[in-house]
Amino acid sequence: MFDLDSLLIRSLREDIGSGDITTESCVSADAISSGHFIAKEPGVICGIDIAARVFALVDSKIEFKVNSSDGNYVTQGMKIAEISGPSRGILTGERVALNLLQRLSGIATRTKMAACELQSSGAAITDTRKTTPGLRVLEKYAVRTGGGTNHRFGLSDGVLIKDNHIKAAGGITNAVRAARALAPHTIRIEVETETLLQVSESLEAGADIIMLDNMDTQTMEKAVKLIDGRALTEASGNMDSKSLAEVAATGVDFISMGALTHSVKSMDISLRFI
Amino acid sequence: MFDLDSLLIRSLREDIGSGDITTESCVSADAISSGHFIAKEPGVICGIDIAARVFALVDSKIEFKVNSSDGNYVTQGMKIAEISGPSRGILTGERVALNLLQRLSGIATRTKMAACELQSSGAAITDTRKTTPGLRVLEKYAVRTGGGTNHRFGLSDGVLIKDNHIKAAGGITNAVRAARALAPHTIRIEVETETLLQVSESLEAGADIIMLDNMDTQTMEKAVKLIDGRALTEASGNMDSKSLAEVAATGVDFISMGALTHSVKSMDISLRFI
Amino acid sequence: MFDLDSLLIRSLREDIGSGDITTESCVSADAISSGHFIAKEPGVICGIDIAARVFALVDSKIEFKVNSSDGNYVTQGMKIAEISGPSRGILTGERVALNLLQRLSGIATRTKMAACELQSSGAAITDTRKTTPGLRVLEKYAVRTGGGTNHRFGLSDGVLIKDNHIKAAGGITNAVRAARALAPHTIRIEVETETLLQVSESLEAGADIIMLDNMDTQTMEKAVKLIDGRALTEASGNMDSKSLAEVAATGVDFISMGALTHSVKSMDISLRFI
Amino acid sequence: MFDLDSLLIRSLREDIGSGDITTESCVSADAISSGHFIAKEPGVICGIDIAARVFALVDSKIEFKVNSSDGNYVTQGMKIAEISGPSRGILTGERVALNLLQRLSGIATRTKMAACELQSSGAAITDTRKTTPGLRVLEKYAVRTGGGTNHRFGLSDGVLIKDNHIKAAGGITNAVRAARALAPHTIRIEVETETLLQVSESLEAGADIIMLDNMDTQTMEKAVKLIDGRALTEASGNMDSKSLAEVAATGVDFISMGALTHSVKSMDISLRFI
Amino acid sequence: MFDLDSLLIRSLREDIGSGDITTESCVSADAISSGHFIAKEPGVICGIDIAARVFALVDSKIEFKVNSSDGNYVTQGMKIAEISGPSRGILTGERVALNLLQRLSGIATRTKMAACELQSSGAAITDTRKTTPGLRVLEKYAVRTGGGTNHRFGLSDGVLIKDNHIKAAGGITNAVRAARALAPHTIRIEVETETLLQVSESLEAGADIIMLDNMDTQTMEKAVKLIDGRALTEASGNMDSKSLAEVAATGVDFISMGALTHSVKSMDISLRFI
Amino acid sequence: MFDLDSLLIRSLREDIGSGDITTESCVSADAISSGHFIAKEPGVICGIDIAARVFALVDSKIEFKVNSSDGNYVTQGMKIAEISGPSRGILTGERVALNLLQRLSGIATRTKMAACELQSSGAAITDTRKTTPGLRVLEKYAVRTGGGTNHRFGLSDGVLIKDNHIKAAGGITNAVRAARALAPHTIRIEVETETLLQVSESLEAGADIIMLDNMDTQTMEKAVKLIDGRALTEASGNMDSKSLAEVAATGVDFISMGALTHSVKSMDISLRFI
Repeated sequence: MFDLDSLLIRSLREDIGSGDITTESCVSADAISSGHFIAKEPGVICGIDIAARVFALVDSKIEFKVNSSDGNYVTQGMKIAEISGPSRGILTGERVALNLLQRLSGIATRTKMAACELQSSGAAITDTRKTTPGLRVLEKYAVRTGGGTNHRFGLSDGVLIKDNHIKAAGGITNAVRAARALAPHTIRIEVETETLLQVSESLEAGADIIMLDNMDTQTMEKAVKLIDGRALTEASGNMDSKSLAEVAATGVDFISMGALTHSVKSMDISLRFI
Repeated sequence: MFDLDSLLIRSLREDIGSGDITTESCVSADAISSGHFIAKEPGVICGIDIAARVFALVDSKIEFKVNSSDGNYVTQGMKIAEISGPSRGILTGERVALNLLQRLSGIATRTKMAACELQSSGAAITDTRKTTPGLRVLEKYAVRTGGGTNHRFGLSDGVLIKDNHIKAAGGITNAVRAARALAPHTIRIEVETETLLQVSESLEAGADIIMLDNMDTQTMEKAVKLIDGRALTEASGNMDSKSLAEVAATGVDFISMGALTHSVKSMDISLRFI
Repeated sequence: MFDLDSLLIRSLREDIGSGDITTESCVSADAISSGHFIAKEPGVICGIDIAARVFALVDSKIEFKVNSSDGNYVTQGMKIAEISGPSRGILTGERVALNLLQRLSGIATRTKMAACELQSSGAAITDTRKTTPGLRVLEKYAVRTGGGTNHRFGLSDGVLIKDNHIKAAGGITNAVRAARALAPHTIRIEVETETLLQVSESLEAGADIIMLDNMDTQTMEKAVKLIDGRALTEASGNMDSKSLAEVAATGVDFISMGALTHSVKSMDISLRFI
Repeated sequence: MFDLDSLLIRSLREDIGSGDITTESCVSADAISSGHFIAKEPGVICGIDIAARVFALVDSKIEFKVNSSDGNYVTQGMKIAEISGPSRGILTGERVALNLLQRLSGIATRTKMAACELQSSGAAITDTRKTTPGLRVLEKYAVRTGGGTNHRFGLSDGVLIKDNHIKAAGGITNAVRAARALAPHTIRIEVETETLLQVSESLEAGADIIMLDNMDTQTMEKAVKLIDGRALTEASGNMDSKSLAEVAATGVDFISMGALTHSVKSMDISLRFI
Repeated sequence: MFDLDSLLIRSLREDIGSGDITTESCVSADAISSGHFIAKEPGVICGIDIAARVFALVDSKIEFKVNSSDGNYVTQGMKIAEISGPSRGILTGERVALNLLQRLSGIATRTKMAACELQSSGAAITDTRKTTPGLRVLEKYAVRTGGGTNHRFGLSDGVLIKDNHIKAAGGITNAVRAARALAPHTIRIEVETETLLQVSESLEAGADIIMLDNMDTQTMEKAVKLIDGRALTEASGNMDSKSLAEVAATGVDFISMGALTHSVKSMDISLRFI
Repeated sequence: MFDLDSLLIRSLREDIGSGDITTESCVSADAISSGHFIAKEPGVICGIDIAARVFALVDSKIEFKVNSSDGNYVTQGMKIAEISGPSRGILTGERVALNLLQRLSGIATRTKMAACELQSSGAAITDTRKTTPGLRVLEKYAVRTGGGTNHRFGLSDGVLIKDNHIKAAGGITNAVRAARALAPHTIRIEVETETLLQVSESLEAGADIIMLDNMDTQTMEKAVKLIDGRALTEASGNMDSKSLAEVAATGVDFISMGALTHSVKSMDISLRFI
């Protein structure tokens, strides 16, 4: 909440610099405008309250009425929100508000597509740490808005033992034991595996979650059977180029996909003045 | 320069939180590692010095050797850089460094493709303010790295008179005059036009740059002829879905494209330990 | 706007430190006062809304009524504003509010004097980057308030090629070409010249603005004739020690004067309690 | 020390914005320059180490050799310092370094003039809180450099009971007592007086310092005799328009002068490249 | 005031991180709760308005009614305050509010106990700089709330010449003279002494305050007689392990005790929902 | 790491304010000193590298040699570290360094005592969120240094369902289900229980950790048997007033104790100059 305001003020400063000279010169201080935010393509809205907050920070006299809340699916041409108030503030805040709204809606829309593919399976789509620096809280929120779940937020609220950690610790068993000793007991321990042998070792070491990384679906299926509910399972590795339904059919609990946040196509939304 | 460090520290804090518990538990404080940054697909590198700076901030004992400087085109499998030093720092900084390097290289690669399309024309590809909040300096740098030019940085270093400014000011002539009076004399004045009539009016009002927004190429061609070098010309409006060569053939000076920064596909780069 | 609040809070912190012990001990928390801001010498008011904002930040229950808006000329003894509310907040905020108001009014008054000298000429008085570190936005605002225009805000929103840039680039022509290639097309290019030869070369190189630096008025007049409207002209160099009217008579467009902001005599304004 | 770096970085950011486009385009990254800082008028140098620090922050490879330390009196044409290193950094940092150096030297020079007037008296020249917001630490340092002493830094490290505090507390005696009860015992209590009656009352109330505000010199002389060393005395009130020697002859201990910092004429210093 | 908000926001961020996942998942956004803050042991309340401010920052719709103001002594089971409003905000802010309230009340309670011991003497209990980094303003406020007085806030608002300063300056006389020359005249000069000889020397040097450090009570008594009102006296050195009444009987003016703030037992206060 | 420097700089600013006037006046800029940090009572050292960092930030020329690393038990009179370098920096940084070192060593010592009581049991001592605002990272580090383990860092890296969450969610089962749906799968879910009935319900709902809050040891023992290894168990509730050995004998996995951090007695450590 505090971080949101900090982020928005930082973003507004970045854009406004020493002042919006076009607006200040062309638009009088007491001019009033109103307009609509219009979806120019179908998608899942995310960030509408954030857009509203941007305008509130620019000028508290701007009124913002939300028609489609976060998570709503809208079709092309729909009015997402209405805005009215001092023209200067609306023009000055427009770009920052749209930049965030379009990006987050793009992420939510992409996540929703993945979630739909998984609808009849027991697997959930989940995100990664491959987010835009500075925007992680928002981008992970967009993933939830689109129907996905969140993986750990960062390095301090989850343990994910990767290849290099295993080597450095002298094997999976040592690594899991070391992590147990240091990590708060409120946190689960996940091990990244690439072979069935590593899956076995992780299970015996007491891993809570086993990541099946870059495995073909047959191996993944064997791994899931081997684990047999004794740990959570997470499929990973270029999942944007695979059939999610096929991956889900192996029985994994989670499918994590970096592309949800690292390769985003903004949703086309525009502000049309009346 | 100062802003870069602030941004990187903010990004590292976001990821590291209260500590990298996996690395701290599994990897001893005196362990040493080395590795290569590998391009997993062809593209234009951008942000390699920024990646180096991330690691320097995490641990000044990490050494980073750049093989491919910013602007270099690399093919799949090429080593972009080498890293060596304390394992903990390398593992802790890896994600933030890659998140930035991949994103900026994605932008540079996309820009280079556009610049190539325009190579035999007189037109330049240019960016917009549709950047990721907080990353504008870096994203505009990536556009230059890919061979594009920058439009104004933000609202204070350029005048761009749009539809709503024109209405509020009571016409193009008034708007240009008002902007001239307020804006530093070091800044040019640009007017957004959608019709030839507006182009004429802008010219007479003394606009320095005329944006030809959402015009079909025939109209654009007429506009360029009408202007006849008395103002710079900039084509705009969903340029990612058009043939840039065809647009350039109208004779415009600049083609601005929001998609360069608002819809980015990260370039696939990974850190492989030896 | 955000920067203003940051600046004011920083200024208040600087003055208040760990608390205003005089006021806290002598004045009860529920005491109420009112007073007037009085001009103790004639001048142009600037910063009255900033003063109001200082008090609003100290205690939102303080009421502040503006009698003379920014840009108004006031004579000695005139009431500029009225204030009323909690005595503690008024006493605690008084010094910071006055320090800003007096300084900005001093700049506006000095600028107005210069602008008056130029009234019947076609030249405008403009500022420089010789401002107080941290206060540039406000001091440039004060210059506009006094009837001057602003030069570029800083190093990123204007190109000003000086002697050393010319040497480093290998001549004026190279320098102008290099700047054109890097600078956004929304920004004009200015070259600093000291001789008519340099004026010619700048013109041919396509400079948009030519600074006539430390020239005597005869040379300046020749330069203006030589340029003949093909570029904007700016007279510069210890302009506070010259007759502005005489300089203006050469036909230059702008006269820039560092003394407007680097050598300021605060306007004498006091807060008198009733 | 930390605040200095924060202030300098803030000042550099203010000036540099998103980048020094003139220098980046005209000057190659490996160009080297050297130059001298020259006094263009006589004065007392102050801030030379601060100027050095500005360049160190811009580029740690810049070398800066001080010829005239803070407090030195220099004549017109003297070399104050030498600089050499990367041309880009020198050009980019020049303005901020000069803005600070010129302003602080201006304050030190003005203070030195006042201190000279008082040389044969027992009175010291002292500053006030009428400083530039954000620069108080530096400006008070400049006053000391010029041979003055500092009054309290801000509202928390000194008690100065003024007219309104007296009214609110119900008389001088009450005010002094209340301040004694709240203020740390390490802090002296000063009372502002305008009449001999108030002087008496302050003395009886146990004031440590008595300010003689806006008194003519005869009254001031009587006040000093009345006080007779039982409290420190401070003359105050438009001291820049009076004969300091005459005021000092009344026997006061301190003369405080707001103009030392609120109305500064920058000392003319320039950076000349070789 | 500004620092308070900064501190509270920093504390809330520290606790909330990327979000209160328990509350967000279990409690609906429109749920309403109310509760009481209950003293679970007797003590002096301090920080109740700060607790209120914490909740206001979390959610401005939370109402907070204070029953026992700062400085009130409460017995076990008493209601200190009532809270009502959105359940989410109350649950999310609870810990930070209590952490501050309990700590400050612990300090106030401990100070009150010391002040009571000194009630019939002329000595006051005072604090030191042995406070928790980041919380000094609040902890010194808690000392005042408990009936103590404050020593200097930090290194810039008081002079305390210790053993090492004396050695470095070449004796007490030199040290006092040097401090007088640099320190604002609004600040008193204190010397730390361990022997009667040092006390004499300090007196002659003109010290305003003499600290009697680690002296037995007989020596202290002699020192007080020797000083005879010509300077303030302050007893110091492990005062938490001594009889304050006995120390006070020596006639000292102040007794400073680091334990007031460096070794705090939080007062037990809880928030009970209705 | 970045947060540490921010915290230390904030702490130094708090103490130093506008300058250490005692040291600046009494100690010459080129004076050199050396000294030892001495334990004045036995305890577990924690924060020695942090103390070293404080001095490095004040003056990078200060050398600091650690004799007893964090976690070492020292007896009265032992030298913990040696320091040498510029006297001014040592004197100016001393208080902040000691304030942190003494506090963290106090926490580590207190934790070590608790850990020793539990040595022959299977239970671990763990901390809570009852830490000093702003110091949580350091205080939790001190708990680990003393042989304890950490509970969740804050509200975002663990789920702890308390009484009010249960009521709001409509029972334990609903609350656990809701938390599962929102929380990252990398985080465990803990439920606070006060009765055996709640323990049963939590188990059935699939809680990963069950807190046994304010239960007598008989009930606790029954709860542990009932749970029978199907969830982790944590004893909680005024544990500082109980026999830890007795609590551990019930078979719980963790004992959490707020007093480790909310009621700290600083360890007595001093800096003695040679």
